[in-house]
Amino acid sequence: MGRASHTLTFSCRNRPGIVAAIAQALFELGANITEAQQFDDTESERFFMRVVFNQVSGKEPEGLDTALEALADKFGMTWSLRDNRHRTRVLLLVSRFDHCLVDLLYRWRVGELEIDPVGIVSNHPVDAHAGIDFGDIPFHYLPVTKSGKEESEARLLSIVDETKADLVVLARYMQILSNETALKLSGRCINIHHSFLPGFKGARPYHQAFARGVKLIGATAHFVTSDLDEGPIIEQDVERISHSDTPEDLIRKGRDIERQVLARAVRCFVEQRVIINERKTIVFVS
Amino acid sequence: MGRASHTLTFSCRNRPGIVAAIAQALFELGANITEAQQFDDTESERFFMRVVFNQVSGKEPEGLDTALEALADKFGMTWSLRDNRHRTRVLLLVSRFDHCLVDLLYRWRVGELEIDPVGIVSNHPVDAHAGIDFGDIPFHYLPVTKSGKEESEARLLSIVDETKADLVVLARYMQILSNETALKLSGRCINIHHSFLPGFKGARPYHQAFARGVKLIGATAHFVTSDLDEGPIIEQDVERISHSDTPEDLIRKGRDIERQVLARAVRCFVEQRVIINERKTIVFVS
Amino acid sequence: MGRASHTLTFSCRNRPGIVAAIAQALFELGANITEAQQFDDTESERFFMRVVFNQVSGKEPEGLDTALEALADKFGMTWSLRDNRHRTRVLLLVSRFDHCLVDLLYRWRVGELEIDPVGIVSNHPVDAHAGIDFGDIPFHYLPVTKSGKEESEARLLSIVDETKADLVVLARYMQILSNETALKLSGRCINIHHSFLPGFKGARPYHQAFARGVKLIGATAHFVTSDLDEGPIIEQDVERISHSDTPEDLIRKGRDIERQVLARAVRCFVEQRVIINERKTIVFVS
Amino acid sequence: MGRASHTLTFSCRNRPGIVAAIAQALFELGANITEAQQFDDTESERFFMRVVFNQVSGKEPEGLDTALEALADKFGMTWSLRDNRHRTRVLLLVSRFDHCLVDLLYRWRVGELEIDPVGIVSNHPVDAHAGIDFGDIPFHYLPVTKSGKEESEARLLSIVDETKADLVVLARYMQILSNETALKLSGRCINIHHSFLPGFKGARPYHQAFARGVKLIGATAHFVTSDLDEGPIIEQDVERISHSDTPEDLIRKGRDIERQVLARAVRCFVEQRVIINERKTIVFVS
Repeated sequence: MGRASHTLTFSCRNRPGIVAAIAQALFELGANITEAQQFDDTESERFFMRVVFNQVSGKEPEGLDTALEALADKFGMTWSLRDNRHRTRVLLLVSRFDHCLVDLLYRWRVGELEIDPVGIVSNHPVDAHAGIDFGDIPFHYLPVTKSGKEESEARLLSIVDETKADLVVLARYMQILSNETALKLSGRCINIHHSFLPGFKGARPYHQAFARGVKLIGATAHFVTSDLDEGPIIEQDVERISHSDTPEDLIRKGRDIERQVLARAVRCFVEQRVIINERKTIVFVS
Repeated sequence: MGRASHTLTFSCRNRPGIVAAIAQALFELGANITEAQQFDDTESERFFMRVVFNQVSGKEPEGLDTALEALADKFGMTWSLRDNRHRTRVLLLVSRFDHCLVDLLYRWRVGELEIDPVGIVSNHPVDAHAGIDFGDIPFHYLPVTKSGKEESEARLLSIVDETKADLVVLARYMQILSNETALKLSGRCINIHHSFLPGFKGARPYHQAFARGVKLIGATAHFVTSDLDEGPIIEQDVERISHSDTPEDLIRKGRDIERQVLARAVRCFVEQRVIINERKTIVFVS
Repeated sequence: MGRASHTLTFSCRNRPGIVAAIAQALFELGANITEAQQFDDTESERFFMRVVFNQVSGKEPEGLDTALEALADKFGMTWSLRDNRHRTRVLLLVSRFDHCLVDLLYRWRVGELEIDPVGIVSNHPVDAHAGIDFGDIPFHYLPVTKSGKEESEARLLSIVDETKADLVVLARYMQILSNETALKLSGRCINIHHSFLPGFKGARPYHQAFARGVKLIGATAHFVTSDLDEGPIIEQDVERISHSDTPEDLIRKGRDIERQVLARAVRCFVEQRVIINERKTIVFVS
Repeated sequence: MGRASHTLTFSCRNRPGIVAAIAQALFELGANITEAQQFDDTESERFFMRVVFNQVSGKEPEGLDTALEALADKFGMTWSLRDNRHRTRVLLLVSRFDHCLVDLLYRWRVGELEIDPVGIVSNHPVDAHAGIDFGDIPFHYLPVTKSGKEESEARLLSIVDETKADLVVLARYMQILSNETALKLSGRCINIHHSFLPGFKGARPYHQAFARGVKLIGATAHFVTSDLDEGPIIEQDVERISHSDTPEDLIRKGRDIERQVLARAVRCFVEQRVIINERKTIVFVS
């Protein structure tokens, strides 16, 4: 991890020569491309790319930003460059059910997820999460009342600012963010919904699934938008159930899917593998 | 297969002593239970059971119907008894896409599905299905026009009657049955819908899935009811897709799921493993 | 959970009348069967059954043991009866990697697994497991050295005795038990092996999988026998990998499979769903 | 499909500048890259790439071979270029079980697999495959006897030559090729083995799986080498089974996995997505 390594992601209108220009520019800067993925969206005619590179010399790249700006100008790129030594600063929001939170924290502790948890926000007091060792991570109790919703969201946004969070994770945070807040966190707020969207939007999806008699249940990690449960989907998975499973069994089986789907989505975000493409996402898997 | 073997399925209001009464009655008739599955639906307070038994003596069971009728009376059972030497008579309906039809016919030919295909009904002429060897199975060309829908459904129902079909399979039959027809075929008509219901009901589900950007696509086999795509679900499965899959890729990947899900559902029906429980099904897997 | 509920499992040589006799005996004792599963092994000609029942009266069943003993005598049954209010006492063994341990403890804390963890045994000191809150569960540091192996196994067996453990779980305990110890824990010791057995037995299975270039990796929970990695398999699962996954990626992806497979196996044991059938297991899923 | 489109795959020792050189060369030839995937094998220090490109002008690329040869020289590349209008010529070998053969032929008929089946070879006479419509595809009956093995393999190789087959598919061809033949077909002969390798090599794998009591069965598509069941794996998949499944059930469930795994492997080969990397494969999925 010592060696300087960067991840560049960008999108632009597709036209010939983009890959050549990017590859040539990186080569001239002494960079060695270790990973590259691209997607040519023939529907929108946009081109998306993710490139990971390190420096052959082992030194810091010089002139990288300038070179990229020149290319961005030429091709009309929207781009993002990440120094891979920067750990993604993550703010974790949770309500009563803490299986996703516990799971993310474990993955962080054993070094699986290269994140820095910069805070926990819960609408339940810290005692409600007994049995979890938060260590040095600041805990914010943010009760939500109907009348105080505006105020509590303002407080949430100031925590996001203060902690310089790169990513806000709704790890089974059972509060619906207002349109304004959703908009402010656009592209950096991931929710886990406990159904296989677009099936069973809204409240109590496992009870809905039980009532409908489906044979598989699922979970969906998606970016939060002002449109509830309609944001761009990052990851989904399912598990088989049977007629003998009660709603409580679905909730139990669902926990395993939820935590895994959310963890994969966070990992994708951290490694810059996911790019929003209007209502959808591009996910460059390894 | 020579030995007499029966499958009994029944449901009744739950109360103690049912299993004992059934098991005792079968024992007294000289039957040996080889498979038994039960489900106690605590929601509806109904009890469901499937029992497979053969005769110890190898002879035909005597007094079976009488004994079962007595028990049915006592416990208020709805029941069904199948001589397992009877092969399920299946009428297959198809439109342009014939992958499910071809798949079911192959499974029948190699002896995997113990059915008798008693007819093929298509709203396309037989030439549209070139490359399929229908052998001796009667082919019925049943064009569907807006004005002639009533007539063509009447014809369909008379084919069902004439062929003594136990089961009607909509193997990608892209016509919506009228409420009346759906009602008449109630409990013996299975459809394959090319989405993971309840997501993407109605027309062009793969295009809907593409537009929404889901990460898995699915297929659903369900009993047909008058409520489109809302019938009791028998089987579902999914397949992973990615941002680079076009609607045509989804259609291709979907074919594999559709044929497998439909084949499993037909097999469950044939082996009397599926029982309708109001809006849902009980599926006694082996 | 207040109402008396029991789970009976038994096996015997198959012959007609077993189900009737059991059902009748339970009915006469005032019991209501809520779940029943059976398996007729035509290979070994043995019959296996699992029955869950409660008392209609809500009182304790009287004469249950006597009635079962009479039946056991008559049919030559091997049987086991569990009062479902008894929580399975589990001793957890771990080495350096604690993801399975942490997972089982979480499932216990939220009430998902109805176990009582009666002790943790590790060949690493408690400091090696910083970040885990063991609460009141006794921790036993049991270093294993080549010369002291016999002694440490003797100590292990006495901990099993002292804690009255019903089940010993090797939750990534990277020590091979001696034949004698395996024999003493026969039928009540579950191991998680980090490969899809019978592939990649022995040490460093993920490195073996990497070297072979498989496209899926797996994990296997099995009963421990004196024959390493050859015990009866309870549960297995797999995950897709690709050519770009390093051995470290396999280890990471494997953690998710391991903990899920082990948790399911422990759950099966706790709910008396698994019965050993010589080299194999019968698993009565819900 | 009218427009000229090519797929280039190559591997070489990794060093900076490869991507830039390839992209620049293609740009100068007027090509537009529509897909690109790469893999940097840090173990072997080799670099692998797959590039799909078409001509901006819609005309045939001029000087393509010359330009690629110059690059190949410079970087020490092993490369392969395919005009995507060329359909892969496939020779299909089969024994008694024809589910994989029927499946591949169906996928070809509906245009899913862009192959040209240039012949069927079976060690059973054509009557053994009644019910399959081979159309115009030449059928070769090639009985295999112990004494005549050499001769029949010589005949097989001459059929490969005469048909100019790009790919030989052992679609459940239950004969072991000699080392010499395996060597001659190296890199263009795919086998489907009916187990999850490396478990259950050799004969009757489903019976082996049954005897071992595994909870999942699988299938493996791999390149044929002189080392039986040890060739580089292209694709694998599994299906859940239970204690109540007989070897015949495993064979039945296995058919579905086998045909799907083999079809995916053939598709990968046809689309130049699979590259052999010593004992393993690189599979660039879409």
